[in-house]
Amino acid sequence: MSMHWWQEPCQPLDHVARGKAQARQQQLTKPAGSLGQLEQLAIQLAALQGSERPRVERVSIAIFAGDHGVVAEGVSAFPQAVTGQMLRNFVSGGAAISVLARHLQTSLEVIDLGTAVPLDPLPGVLHLNLGAGTANFLHGPAMSAAQVTAALAAGRETVLRAQQRGCELYLGGEMGIGNTTAATALACLLLERPAGALVGPGTGLDDAGIARKLAVIDSALALHRLRPLEPIEALAALGGFEIAALVGAYLACAQQGIVALVDGYICSVAALLAVRLNPASREWLLFAHCGAEPGHQVVLAALRAEVLLDLGLRLGEGSGAALAVPLLQLACRLHNEMATFAEAAVAERQA
Amino acid sequence: MSMHWWQEPCQPLDHVARGKAQARQQQLTKPAGSLGQLEQLAIQLAALQGSERPRVERVSIAIFAGDHGVVAEGVSAFPQAVTGQMLRNFVSGGAAISVLARHLQTSLEVIDLGTAVPLDPLPGVLHLNLGAGTANFLHGPAMSAAQVTAALAAGRETVLRAQQRGCELYLGGEMGIGNTTAATALACLLLERPAGALVGPGTGLDDAGIARKLAVIDSALALHRLRPLEPIEALAALGGFEIAALVGAYLACAQQGIVALVDGYICSVAALLAVRLNPASREWLLFAHCGAEPGHQVVLAALRAEVLLDLGLRLGEGSGAALAVPLLQLACRLHNEMATFAEAAVAERQA
Repeated sequence: MSMHWWQEPCQPLDHVARGKAQARQQQLTKPAGSLGQLEQLAIQLAALQGSERPRVERVSIAIFAGDHGVVAEGVSAFPQAVTGQMLRNFVSGGAAISVLARHLQTSLEVIDLGTAVPLDPLPGVLHLNLGAGTANFLHGPAMSAAQVTAALAAGRETVLRAQQRGCELYLGGEMGIGNTTAATALACLLLERPAGALVGPGTGLDDAGIARKLAVIDSALALHRLRPLEPIEALAALGGFEIAALVGAYLACAQQGIVALVDGYICSVAALLAVRLNPASREWLLFAHCGAEPGHQVVLAALRAEVLLDLGLRLGEGSGAALAVPLLQLACRLHNEMATFAEAAVAERQA
Repeated sequence: MSMHWWQEPCQPLDHVARGKAQARQQQLTKPAGSLGQLEQLAIQLAALQGSERPRVERVSIAIFAGDHGVVAEGVSAFPQAVTGQMLRNFVSGGAAISVLARHLQTSLEVIDLGTAVPLDPLPGVLHLNLGAGTANFLHGPAMSAAQVTAALAAGRETVLRAQQRGCELYLGGEMGIGNTTAATALACLLLERPAGALVGPGTGLDDAGIARKLAVIDSALALHRLRPLEPIEALAALGGFEIAALVGAYLACAQQGIVALVDGYICSVAALLAVRLNPASREWLLFAHCGAEPGHQVVLAALRAEVLLDLGLRLGEGSGAALAVPLLQLACRLHNEMATFAEAAVAERQA
């Protein structure tokens, strides 16, 4: 059996650095535990980066776009042309993630994996042309094995480029009309949950639209029942180019030793796939937020993910992850720069 | 009946600016509502600032410190000398809020209202010497009327100074060993709730400590039962210098038209007092986070406050509010800088 790149080992955690960071947290001039989740976050980052004083100043964002054949079934509130139009918006600076990347001073790569409506090349976009969107998974697998492999590699390559820029924190984002349908179908298959427990309005379906989406996912699950369940086959059957690219990116982050901050629902499903393919990758994934889509909570629970934000976001594009970046950076700065009780001559708690 | 400054009118909201901001949100290149809480936040800021495009770039932080006579009853895990020691830590840059203020590029004022252990003057600290801490409220009112008036004015003055610096967002913070006891007693009195529903470990009491704190608050509530309940008398009876200063600061923000971002439990109790004294001030208060102390949730619910963060923080010093500043800033930047559907030539949702 040949080994695929994504099955190769992930970077191990540094337990010495973790111990030092934990000891440091106890000495900082604050009641123990009073910075809540931010304390554990700093300690985890120390273990991941192998440094008592972790840092996440150099941030790379990659946005992956792709279309979905299943949109023919009427599962989205927006026309499919929007995927291409938003690619232009990402690079011209008007999209949410563009505004966030600018103010957070991150790099922003935009990868077009394949749109349904043909696009003229856009300056600043890497066009990979894996297909005119995926195939409609009501009639067969969404992707060929070659498309899955190419999309996984495309994700990995963004990580390798980020690493060359000295990236300390990687964020993936996605854009693809119809991709909550693909993500929900995938999550149902992987978690063996009924579609009704996960399906939601996506970008804004009404009740009739949600009912239609539910019926589509049920049909797809009946068609693609996989025994035994192979994550790669599930991805090919129901996934999307952008979802596969995110899977590849998260796995490459874990292998290259770069912390990844997972965005919303689609990204969390990609993270679930990454962890099924290579369980050690879980340690390298932080989860930015719990969004409005009902399936998001289910997937986060399956991943035992503790999130930083819960603001009812459901935009995608990596926007929720970008919004959480200042919290990670400030958690590190607090950990690294606060005075200890000894340094500040502050009395510790009474015995 | 003479009118006190804090009863004077608050700045009205601008409903035209609110309407324009609301319309703008609908036109930005994202599904309507997909930025969740951040959309309503931008719209509320527009109404408060009277501008379709609000901004919260210039941020002022004021930290108020004071000691509490009730600490004699053994209600804190830390010795009272820590209040003064932390004042030094605030100005020397080693405290959590100092690290946050530095990275957020905010101004930071440190006001010593009165510590139990006498302090030599500290460079960078404004020493107001209202008393050697408050009196033990198990034996009488914590503060005299003159002390309350002086502390309220001290808070107001930080806002007037912030306004001169062009402040667009005001954060108050507090430091005072024993102040969760004072805040809990005040909240119980104002909300007519039993102490058992609100009391918690503060900086880190064990179960025996919490039981002692509960008994102390119950005794104080029995002693200071006020009929009719006058918020100013409640503040004098059970409050602290730093709590009164925060009340004055929040009221002055509302009167001067400066948005205030409320920090944790102590600050939320001060906000409750401000709203009881002058209900129109409520509109000017945003709430940064829900902390770990049980009473915090109760007070936030009474204020119908929707928070931005829920990270289990319980440090005070304004640290939770400071951690939420980037979210407010990014909410404004998204609102102000994202392209509209028309500008970006992106199709809107299907009818």
